[in-house]
Amino acid sequence: MADALVLSIDGMGGDNAPDIVVEGVEIAARKSPDVSFIIHGDAERINHLLELAPHARAVSRVAPAERAIGMDVKPSQAVRQGRGSSLWNAVASVEEGEARAVVSAGNTGAFMAISMFRLRMMEGVHRPALTCTLPSMRGKVALLDVGANVEADAEQLVEFAIMGEAFHRALHGTARPKVGLLNVGSEDMKGHEEIRAAARLMRAARIDLDFHGFIEGDDIGKGVVDVVVTDGFTGNIALKTLEGTARLVGQFLRDALTADPLARLGALFAYPALRKLRARMDPSTSNGAVFLGLNGVVVKSHGGATGSGYAAAIDVARRIAASSYREEIARNIDRLARADAAAAAAGVGEAN
Amino acid sequence: MADALVLSIDGMGGDNAPDIVVEGVEIAARKSPDVSFIIHGDAERINHLLELAPHARAVSRVAPAERAIGMDVKPSQAVRQGRGSSLWNAVASVEEGEARAVVSAGNTGAFMAISMFRLRMMEGVHRPALTCTLPSMRGKVALLDVGANVEADAEQLVEFAIMGEAFHRALHGTARPKVGLLNVGSEDMKGHEEIRAAARLMRAARIDLDFHGFIEGDDIGKGVVDVVVTDGFTGNIALKTLEGTARLVGQFLRDALTADPLARLGALFAYPALRKLRARMDPSTSNGAVFLGLNGVVVKSHGGATGSGYAAAIDVARRIAASSYREEIARNIDRLARADAAAAAAGVGEAN
Repeated sequence: MADALVLSIDGMGGDNAPDIVVEGVEIAARKSPDVSFIIHGDAERINHLLELAPHARAVSRVAPAERAIGMDVKPSQAVRQGRGSSLWNAVASVEEGEARAVVSAGNTGAFMAISMFRLRMMEGVHRPALTCTLPSMRGKVALLDVGANVEADAEQLVEFAIMGEAFHRALHGTARPKVGLLNVGSEDMKGHEEIRAAARLMRAARIDLDFHGFIEGDDIGKGVVDVVVTDGFTGNIALKTLEGTARLVGQFLRDALTADPLARLGALFAYPALRKLRARMDPSTSNGAVFLGLNGVVVKSHGGATGSGYAAAIDVARRIAASSYREEIARNIDRLARADAAAAAAGVGEAN
Repeated sequence: MADALVLSIDGMGGDNAPDIVVEGVEIAARKSPDVSFIIHGDAERINHLLELAPHARAVSRVAPAERAIGMDVKPSQAVRQGRGSSLWNAVASVEEGEARAVVSAGNTGAFMAISMFRLRMMEGVHRPALTCTLPSMRGKVALLDVGANVEADAEQLVEFAIMGEAFHRALHGTARPKVGLLNVGSEDMKGHEEIRAAARLMRAARIDLDFHGFIEGDDIGKGVVDVVVTDGFTGNIALKTLEGTARLVGQFLRDALTADPLARLGALFAYPALRKLRARMDPSTSNGAVFLGLNGVVVKSHGGATGSGYAAAIDVARRIAASSYREEIARNIDRLARADAAAAAAGVGEAN
């Protein structure tokens, strides 16, 4: 590889930074030795941790940053006062072309605000979208937006569809990910106007993707589509409801398997299988939410991720940075813009 | 009891009607012998089934209805052409004062439309809300609206809160159910304008209920509040996402417990405990969605409910019909109306 892939890491973001961060880089470096890292943060502590992380040490450069952004810092404060922090510098590495992607487990709002401020939106994209990966009966499902914006109009929903489709292909190698719009029914007349207009616009603009139409909430787990598109309000509530339900069922299962001696004995025999189940449900195996639509790959790890969870987020950054997702998005965004222009020229609404 | 409680039953609604319906009435009649029933539908078939259901037979009257409304009939069609069907007549029994509540496992849209058309909205209530009951770590949670309306303004959200609170008390006997508004964060400035205005209005109008403020999607499963209020679009997606996730985790658990001989052996020992878990997660134990806000209690059973599931829906109808939920709702709706009037008189917006 002529041009090695460089990832920028916020060494100080997350509940157990920088320890977990370096542990994550070590695991990632062992798996993908062709990637190198710039780790931003407390150089003394990070260098000390790298002494025990030989794979990471071999491919990392430590970039000193004198401070970290706390979890209670508001997005607007972070943009005004964040300069010089590990998070700010990690994003700046992408802006300056030193790195192709940035990973942080720190303050989500601050990370999104600084990324938007420094990296700016991709041409033709109106709003970025936070995208997460979920398990389903048929494979991994991308859900977006899960909270970057509270509302989305029809055109923004189509942009999310375009970005989510390229994201799924970049991450999982799916040739033609199937895209669905989250709604309260699958019939054409269901839902509110924005969502119906988005479906019409998607077809009218001849966006080059496999558009399935509307799906319902239970279709996420069924894996009816690969990419689920919705506004940030609905997406955030769907995501958190899903996480809460998985935790509730897990708790009920623990209650059941510790209720009496026979159940405890059964759980003992089934222990290896139950551990695998736990890994399958573990959010860290799907760690790495991506902030799509900016000039650069921005990946958010769970704040409480383990080392292997953090490595999963790094892997997301690596796959997307190494893909041609930007060109794919640009092509479809261009189709959308031309459809808008044609509709405007014809003097009709964009959605008709 | 001087005035026995009478429930009206759509004998022909649901996947396995009238068999499952009569089975449900039999179970309910055994449990609550003071309730009597009017079962609407094919008299010959229902009477035949009642021969084998002695408890039901003792407290039921069969009201012949020559036809049933199919599952593919649109709500508007049902209102125009539904007259004389078992569903229509079952609702009419409540309208005419013969029964205090109606239960159907039939076409949801048709049931809601006919109920709204025949029973009309309670005074002061602008839109009805479909309300379901969910399990949580701390007890049962009421979620509304789960799909009667696609949108809801601030005042309607407050009405849903008022109705949901009275519903939870009627169903579970909770003295002061805690009420939360579903949002994307718990801070006051989060979410869109309608939801923030609803929170302000709830406080300004001095609605007599325990208002917790905003909650997030994962708080549903935690049982942070007893009543979760949202618009019908978000509520429907949250409910279906939750159902889909529970099914997905159940599938993953089955996969894990059948993966190898040791796991299968463990599952055998844990079988009674796992069966209890299944019952705890089974939607039929929480069967009975209530269409709140009308002049009469309207309860929808799952179309595929078993006999005991149907009996659970009947039990919901019985508890609510026997409660003082209407008076409680009327009192708080009156507070809301007076707050509106005062705000209008003062020349300020309702939400300030």
